[in-house]
Amino acid sequence: MAVIDRIWTAGLVIIGDEILSGRTQDRNIAQIALWLNLQGIRLAEVRVVGDTVPAIVEAVNALRARNDYLFTTGGIGPTHDDITVDAIAEALGVPVVVHPRARQMLESYYQSRGGITDARLRMARVPEGADLIENRMSGAPGIRWQNIFIMAGVPHITAMMLDALSGAIEGGKPLLSETIGCWVAESEVADLLRATEKAHEGCQIGSYPFFREGKVGANFVIRSTDAVALGACRADLAARLTEAGRAPIDGGI
Amino acid sequence: MAVIDRIWTAGLVIIGDEILSGRTQDRNIAQIALWLNLQGIRLAEVRVVGDTVPAIVEAVNALRARNDYLFTTGGIGPTHDDITVDAIAEALGVPVVVHPRARQMLESYYQSRGGITDARLRMARVPEGADLIENRMSGAPGIRWQNIFIMAGVPHITAMMLDALSGAIEGGKPLLSETIGCWVAESEVADLLRATEKAHEGCQIGSYPFFREGKVGANFVIRSTDAVALGACRADLAARLTEAGRAPIDGGI
Repeated sequence: MAVIDRIWTAGLVIIGDEILSGRTQDRNIAQIALWLNLQGIRLAEVRVVGDTVPAIVEAVNALRARNDYLFTTGGIGPTHDDITVDAIAEALGVPVVVHPRARQMLESYYQSRGGITDARLRMARVPEGADLIENRMSGAPGIRWQNIFIMAGVPHITAMMLDALSGAIEGGKPLLSETIGCWVAESEVADLLRATEKAHEGCQIGSYPFFREGKVGANFVIRSTDAVALGACRADLAARLTEAGRAPIDGGI
Repeated sequence: MAVIDRIWTAGLVIIGDEILSGRTQDRNIAQIALWLNLQGIRLAEVRVVGDTVPAIVEAVNALRARNDYLFTTGGIGPTHDDITVDAIAEALGVPVVVHPRARQMLESYYQSRGGITDARLRMARVPEGADLIENRMSGAPGIRWQNIFIMAGVPHITAMMLDALSGAIEGGKPLLSETIGCWVAESEVADLLRATEKAHEGCQIGSYPFFREGKVGANFVIRSTDAVALGACRADLAARLTEAGRAPIDGGI
C-alpha cells in the first residue's frame, strides 16, 4: 500500500482596486505560486478583492479556515486606502497594536528621510500577537500572524518578503512537473491523454494548446509529487504520441 | 439630492491548475476588467480555482449570487482536464446537452481538419438552456447561460469572445479615472490624500508607490462615475500637491 503524503496548501488573497480595475497587471499570483511550490506547498485558491473591509474579512476567513497557510498582498502602505491590517485584525477578532520593533525600524529608516510621521507610523500597526517579516527594500516590514502572512503588493517588495520566509515554513513534497510539446491539435490526442493519465496513479496531465508560427500545437504538463511515477508517465506519454505519429518535443514547445 | 446611479457588477472565476501552479501568468483578469469597465460594469471579485468540480461549483455559485454577471475563463477545450461545462451545469442544477448549432460549427470547422471526433464534440456540450458566444478564431464557441458567460482561457481567444459581447450586455456609467504622478514618498502626502478624498464625495483616490530612476514616487488615481466631480477632485489634488511643494505631473509618471 502506498503511503499517502500529506499535502500542504495555501490560500492567497490579492487586495487592491488597481487589480480589479485592470490598471495594474497582477504579478503576485504566479510569483507566489512558484515560490510556494519550492516550499512544498500548493496554492489551492486565490481571491482578488477590492479595498473594502467586508470583502477582505470574508476572503481571509474563508481561505484561512481551509488551508494550512494564508498569504495576502497589498494594502499595507501608509495611505488612507491601505486598510489590510485593520481588516485582518477584524477577521481575527483581535485589536490593532503598534509593534515596537516595527516602530523602531521605521524610525530608523525615516531618520534621514524627513523623520517619522503619523502616516508612516501606520506601517508599524499589526494585529495583536503578530511577528514581522523582514523587508530589506524599504523600512516597512511584512507581518506574520500564526499561519497568516501579510505582504506588500508591489511585486519586487513581495519578492523580498518571500525571500525572507524561504525555508522557514513547513511543507511537504514539492509538486514536480515535466513538459512535452507536440505540433498537434489537442483534440486529436484527447483520448490518448485521458488513457495515459488513467494508467498512472498520482499523475495529472494538463493540456495547454497554442497557435504559433501559423500552426496549432499543445504542451502537455505532467505533474506528480513522485519523481519515479512522473518519469514513467512522461515516458509512456512520449511513446504513445510517437506511436500515433506525433513525435513529441522534450521540454515543450 | 443626488440621484444614485445603479452600479452593475461582475464576478470572475479563472479556472486552471496552470495558473495556480505558476506555470502560466494570468492575463485575463486585467483584460476582462478593462473590457467590463467599457461596458459600464465593475469587476467586483475574482477567484482562481483549480480543475476540480467542487472548487468550480462553489466559486460559481458564490459569485453569481451576488453579482449582475458572472464570467469564467478556462477549461472548455476537448481534453479530459476540461471540466468547466460539467461543473457549471452541476452548479446550476441543469443537465449537459449538445448544442445543435455548436455541433454544426464544429463539424464545419473540422471538415478540412481530419473530421469531427468524440473529443472535438465535447466542445459542443453546454448547460441546458445556453446560447453560444461567437469565436472567430477557432471552431469552438463560448457559452452564455442567462447572466453567466463561459469563455476560453487562452487570452487571445478570450479577447475575441469579449469582442463578440461588446455592447450586448447592459451596464451603468463607466468608472472614469484620472492619474496624477508625483516624485514624492506617498507617506509624505498621506494626510493630504485622505483630506482630498474626504472633500470630494463620490471620488476615490488610490495611491500607488514606485521606485524608479533611483527615486521614490507615487501615482494617484482618482476614480468616479461623475466626470465633473472627477475633474474637481483632480484639480483640487493637484493644487494641494503644488501648495505642499510637490509639483504633480499630469497623466502620471
